[in-house]
Amino acid sequence: MKRLEEKTIHTTPIFQGKIINVQVDEVELPDGKTSKREIVKHPGAVAIIAITKDQNIVMVEQFRKPLEKSIIEIPAGKLEPGEEPMTCAKRELEEETGYTSDHLEFITSFYTSPGFADEIIHIYAARNLSRLEVQKDLDEDEFVEVMECSLEEAEQLEKEHKIQDAKTAFAIQYVKAQGWMK
Amino acid sequence: MKRLEEKTIHTTPIFQGKIINVQVDEVELPDGKTSKREIVKHPGAVAIIAITKDQNIVMVEQFRKPLEKSIIEIPAGKLEPGEEPMTCAKRELEEETGYTSDHLEFITSFYTSPGFADEIIHIYAARNLSRLEVQKDLDEDEFVEVMECSLEEAEQLEKEHKIQDAKTAFAIQYVKAQGWMK
Repeated sequence: MKRLEEKTIHTTPIFQGKIINVQVDEVELPDGKTSKREIVKHPGAVAIIAITKDQNIVMVEQFRKPLEKSIIEIPAGKLEPGEEPMTCAKRELEEETGYTSDHLEFITSFYTSPGFADEIIHIYAARNLSRLEVQKDLDEDEFVEVMECSLEEAEQLEKEHKIQDAKTAFAIQYVKAQGWMK
Repeated sequence: MKRLEEKTIHTTPIFQGKIINVQVDEVELPDGKTSKREIVKHPGAVAIIAITKDQNIVMVEQFRKPLEKSIIEIPAGKLEPGEEPMTCAKRELEEETGYTSDHLEFITSFYTSPGFADEIIHIYAARNLSRLEVQKDLDEDEFVEVMECSLEEAEQLEKEHKIQDAKTAFAIQYVKAQGWMK
């Protein structure tokens, strides 16, 4: 909507990292005043709602340094430069869980923190999983524990704050609304 | 889970902004090797699933500078220092939508981008809305358009990528799974 637009007056680069870049934009507001916007640039990510034949959802437990604790999430990972989200989703599913699927279904895409970051996450569902014969390698600085749980167990983990992640909270409600799991 | 833990060797402060701080932590990985983690610190936020008496969900359209476009989201806002999430949720509902509620129900909390940020968002539902007699002021650099839509309209907006936001995608599935809207 044009009337809400904020025009960039000046961009100050702050940080160029391995994963994120940070900049501060001076903007002209709709009323002509100026303000500053702190912006994190991120390559984007994918996440996979993976349901096993016996109606469990595949989760990974992972230490998240920004939180100083490990939490349980659906499998996910960052896009490599130029990588198709669907290709990335299949790769991350295989690397993180040891499962593969010959049919990933696109569900939706959403921004995780639109107030300060441009990270977008593309959500796929995989409902015809088979085991990889040979386990693939994770990134060398990545350590995850795979687990499978029922919808009831997932909701219990949410109550216990072990599941406390936007994409995973979405996945649980999506699976419930679709009636995919008992 | 202790065996997944990453110990901090050294923290390098990068940026102290009005909303976010950025730091790079050098960490010891579970296998004894070292790596770097780029971390964004955020004060946390709330969002409100507000349902009107005639079964519409209240949304706000807002320009999001990191995305260089406006998107439609459920009402939300950052926590002020020391502010209770429930208090913040009531305040943001009133400021952004002109509605109030004497009973906000806590739904869940989740991290939006646990890979690089500590932002947590607390989700509340307000299902007994009444109109404020006097409209409250928004923050001086905040411009939003309020709208109300049915569940069907919200899902259509999602298909058109006008709704493309994690907390709002969660809200739509939550409302569907609960059967709160037709």
